[in-house]
Amino acid sequence: MSHVEFRTSPAQYRHWRLDVDGPVATLVMDVDEQGGLVPGYELKLNSYDLGVDIELYDAVQRLRFEHPEVKAVVLTSGKEKIFCAGANIRMLAASEHAWKVNFCKFTNETRNGIEDASENSGQTYLAALNGTASGGGYELALACDKILLVDDRSSVVSLPELPLLGVLPGTGGLTRVTDKRHVRRDLADYFATKSEGIGGKKAVAWKLVDEVVPRVRWPEVIAERGRGCAGSARRLPGGPGIELTELGKARTADSVAYRHVTAVIDRDRAVAEITVTGPREDAPASLDGVYAQGAAFWSLAVARELDDLILDLRTNATEIGTWVLKTAGDAARVLAHDDLLLANAGSDWLANEIVLYWKRTLKRLDVTSRSLIALAEPGSCFAGSLLELALAADRSYMLFGVFEDTDPAVLPNTGTPAAVTVGPMNLGPLPMGNGLTRLQTRFLGDPGALAAAEKAAGEPLEAEDAEALGLVTFAPDDIDWAEEVRIAVEERASFSPDALTGLEANYRFAGPETMETKIFGRLTAWQNWIFYRPNASGPDGALRAYGTGKRADFDRKRV
Amino acid sequence: MSHVEFRTSPAQYRHWRLDVDGPVATLVMDVDEQGGLVPGYELKLNSYDLGVDIELYDAVQRLRFEHPEVKAVVLTSGKEKIFCAGANIRMLAASEHAWKVNFCKFTNETRNGIEDASENSGQTYLAALNGTASGGGYELALACDKILLVDDRSSVVSLPELPLLGVLPGTGGLTRVTDKRHVRRDLADYFATKSEGIGGKKAVAWKLVDEVVPRVRWPEVIAERGRGCAGSARRLPGGPGIELTELGKARTADSVAYRHVTAVIDRDRAVAEITVTGPREDAPASLDGVYAQGAAFWSLAVARELDDLILDLRTNATEIGTWVLKTAGDAARVLAHDDLLLANAGSDWLANEIVLYWKRTLKRLDVTSRSLIALAEPGSCFAGSLLELALAADRSYMLFGVFEDTDPAVLPNTGTPAAVTVGPMNLGPLPMGNGLTRLQTRFLGDPGALAAAEKAAGEPLEAEDAEALGLVTFAPDDIDWAEEVRIAVEERASFSPDALTGLEANYRFAGPETMETKIFGRLTAWQNWIFYRPNASGPDGALRAYGTGKRADFDRKRV
Repeated sequence: MSHVEFRTSPAQYRHWRLDVDGPVATLVMDVDEQGGLVPGYELKLNSYDLGVDIELYDAVQRLRFEHPEVKAVVLTSGKEKIFCAGANIRMLAASEHAWKVNFCKFTNETRNGIEDASENSGQTYLAALNGTASGGGYELALACDKILLVDDRSSVVSLPELPLLGVLPGTGGLTRVTDKRHVRRDLADYFATKSEGIGGKKAVAWKLVDEVVPRVRWPEVIAERGRGCAGSARRLPGGPGIELTELGKARTADSVAYRHVTAVIDRDRAVAEITVTGPREDAPASLDGVYAQGAAFWSLAVARELDDLILDLRTNATEIGTWVLKTAGDAARVLAHDDLLLANAGSDWLANEIVLYWKRTLKRLDVTSRSLIALAEPGSCFAGSLLELALAADRSYMLFGVFEDTDPAVLPNTGTPAAVTVGPMNLGPLPMGNGLTRLQTRFLGDPGALAAAEKAAGEPLEAEDAEALGLVTFAPDDIDWAEEVRIAVEERASFSPDALTGLEANYRFAGPETMETKIFGRLTAWQNWIFYRPNASGPDGALRAYGTGKRADFDRKRV
Repeated sequence: MSHVEFRTSPAQYRHWRLDVDGPVATLVMDVDEQGGLVPGYELKLNSYDLGVDIELYDAVQRLRFEHPEVKAVVLTSGKEKIFCAGANIRMLAASEHAWKVNFCKFTNETRNGIEDASENSGQTYLAALNGTASGGGYELALACDKILLVDDRSSVVSLPELPLLGVLPGTGGLTRVTDKRHVRRDLADYFATKSEGIGGKKAVAWKLVDEVVPRVRWPEVIAERGRGCAGSARRLPGGPGIELTELGKARTADSVAYRHVTAVIDRDRAVAEITVTGPREDAPASLDGVYAQGAAFWSLAVARELDDLILDLRTNATEIGTWVLKTAGDAARVLAHDDLLLANAGSDWLANEIVLYWKRTLKRLDVTSRSLIALAEPGSCFAGSLLELALAADRSYMLFGVFEDTDPAVLPNTGTPAAVTVGPMNLGPLPMGNGLTRLQTRFLGDPGALAAAEKAAGEPLEAEDAEALGLVTFAPDDIDWAEEVRIAVEERASFSPDALTGLEANYRFAGPETMETKIFGRLTAWQNWIFYRPNASGPDGALRAYGTGKRADFDRKRV
């Protein structure tokens, strides 16, 4: 495998089936045992690997964009007696630490996306556990709005990671059990120590599932609950579905290029320079034009390209530790595209979906373990939705004035100093995982600075003003620019990659916490540590011992 | 060193001087280079190890109890040109992972205690940085209410851990910079990459310090600011200071015993059985009696004993992974002691201090990486303040009925079934780090259950009722008790100690997050991971390379 590709489509699925029946869709997990992404393991018992999860992500996205009529999604299994056994253990035991962490992150993001669909898209997910859901399988169910479990005296839900594998449930299980489902914490403790799981009435009493259903009534009750969910979901009206056509992508050893987004990799300096190009044309006059353009509509196309690029570089370019973020184009057109979306996001499903997709894509950037440095130069268009890229960055540099050496006649738009523009997209519709806008997080505890930045909305701000308002970190002029930027980028590559990951994860999520930041910030960090320790991953650790009949040999010291 | 002892007193200090001058105390850090707790390193540049921190903790505690007249504490250094260089690097590089984590935890707790004193005791801490404060030295300053820095063109504040050591600031620095001092996150990013630090006006402009003061005016300004803090602090009135007399403690290889608290260690089963005894006498009729009893007053004595025991077992018995928590005595007397404190906590400094000390001690239990199992048996007194022990536990067992085989004539109080009693101490005064009471955390998202438990306040609840109200996890009868408890304890010892630590850390802090839970939950977890990775601790890692002139050799993969 030269690299992992995240683009797929239902016709290519090996592990999932998507059936749409009016307002209710059924998403059937039916994992092909021989269909592992990497050789060396069989995906038994509906266990999953990254490949299975890539298809799930694609299905969830397509449901949102291609199926506006769907208001409820029943997530179930195509196997008898087993819903899903979670992440494949052989795969985990054989994988490098970085792979495991990246895999868990993507899986988490998809599950958060499922919750986002239930909460904000009017597509409510219902987990129909027609058999046992263990580990990551139960965690997948936890991401759904409701959980139904068949009551057949053998099907259970369980989190057996602790007793069987010596690790934690890796995709939000512990957080969702207490903070979403409100399982009492001492019962949750007991539950996470019982590898045999809990089913039947006790699972309902403890709030682990919402309902248990006898097998004889299963099909009928699931159909009924699906219709019920669809009936109460508030999916916005609008035009027909938009086909998510295949994303055009050109890939070389050192570059990834889409229509609006390109990344050029400099392996020596461990940097990827990512440039997002603004709209080449004016925004359509109305939503009709957006429907007509479909997946080619700039805002949607850029979200898809950025999304794919983030996943691609995260997985395939792990040694490229710094991403330099640039934009190029016309800020007014970016803002006009934003305005068209926001004028309709409250009433039209497609406008709403595109804004939500931007939100999720920017969140994906926030949890990416790469240093993000934004550069605002003449010709850039950091405005509104694209300004979020600079606000997501760990640090930003904006050129004061212009580059004296460039000839605007040769390089268009380089004769005018760069400007950044706060727009409505920066003031609410694209919150971070912590529930705040990036501006609010930036000016945490400084309401005066926040108000000043918000008040400047609509004004193109040149470097001096942008720096004074705190929208960019530094504003060197042409004399200092090259040296300052070079040092910022090169010193990043000299630091410990691990320490940078921790630093950035902590600084990016200043302020309040939500279930989402707890999952990425706290739970993930514990999981990383536990996964890495010899008690889990060592030659005598629990992950290696699993299935061999040998007991893990633990260092009993409590840390 | 057979074991680490946390008891100390000013007469024994090697590293600190405490000078009290009316309402202003000065706490001078003047570390004895040769006074390391463990051989193998010199504590240069006012760097610290656990021994230095044990003295600081003692001083902070004594200021609260022995010096009711003190309203402001100036924390400064006895060295020229250096405030504090942070945790000693040689010590960190040479220490085991468990030691580092435990050391950071204790240091964090002391710093949180300093913040608690500023916020709730009316003893405001002022960091007077008469020289450079780097790493943990700056983090110590961050725990103070205000930070003053001498302006002499060489003194700076810095967090050089990332560039110099490849780790994170380990004691809350990243969280406090953004969430407490509201340093903008991109500036904070820059700051944490500059090992040379930031001083002078820029340090003020970036909010890293509150004020810079020229050296010529330093003594005068510090004295003035100290008086100013003292003038605005709201320290409660009351009687004279209480001497924290030496804590009586008997220690054997397998036990630690104080007057009211004992711990018996079973090394084979990796369990410590901790028993807290209720008051042997009735509560005094009024506060005068509390002042008269001083450190012998039950509530204060138990808090001190529990506090010392938690620290002792954490540090000296790392392989004892489960703590079984029991109580014995008269519940009514516990509640009467609680009532006396709570009736006066709003008006008397001592009553307030004792309640705050209980709060901190229980928080220390919450962040202890040991499985906590509470057992309520006949003769126990889980009521009010002592009920918090059961509510802090990961799981609790309460005997339904009595042990059929015991003879009440021989074992007093065993003829009556156990009862637990919710009291006023459970309803607010002892919040967890997440800002909620343990009852609120327990019944997160279930206001009905919370209200029912709160409504039962004052009633002794036998096992059936306690279980129905969700106050205990399980209520087996005599027939099942021994087996259920045995399995719970023994299976705990069979699980991965790392996974248990992560599980408990996540479940104990369900619900909202605060700066404190972020420090312990999120930052600590990242720090644990980073510290453990070869990029920091490996033979070519940054911690080992530091000071050798060799560059660390990093695995550049981003995780």
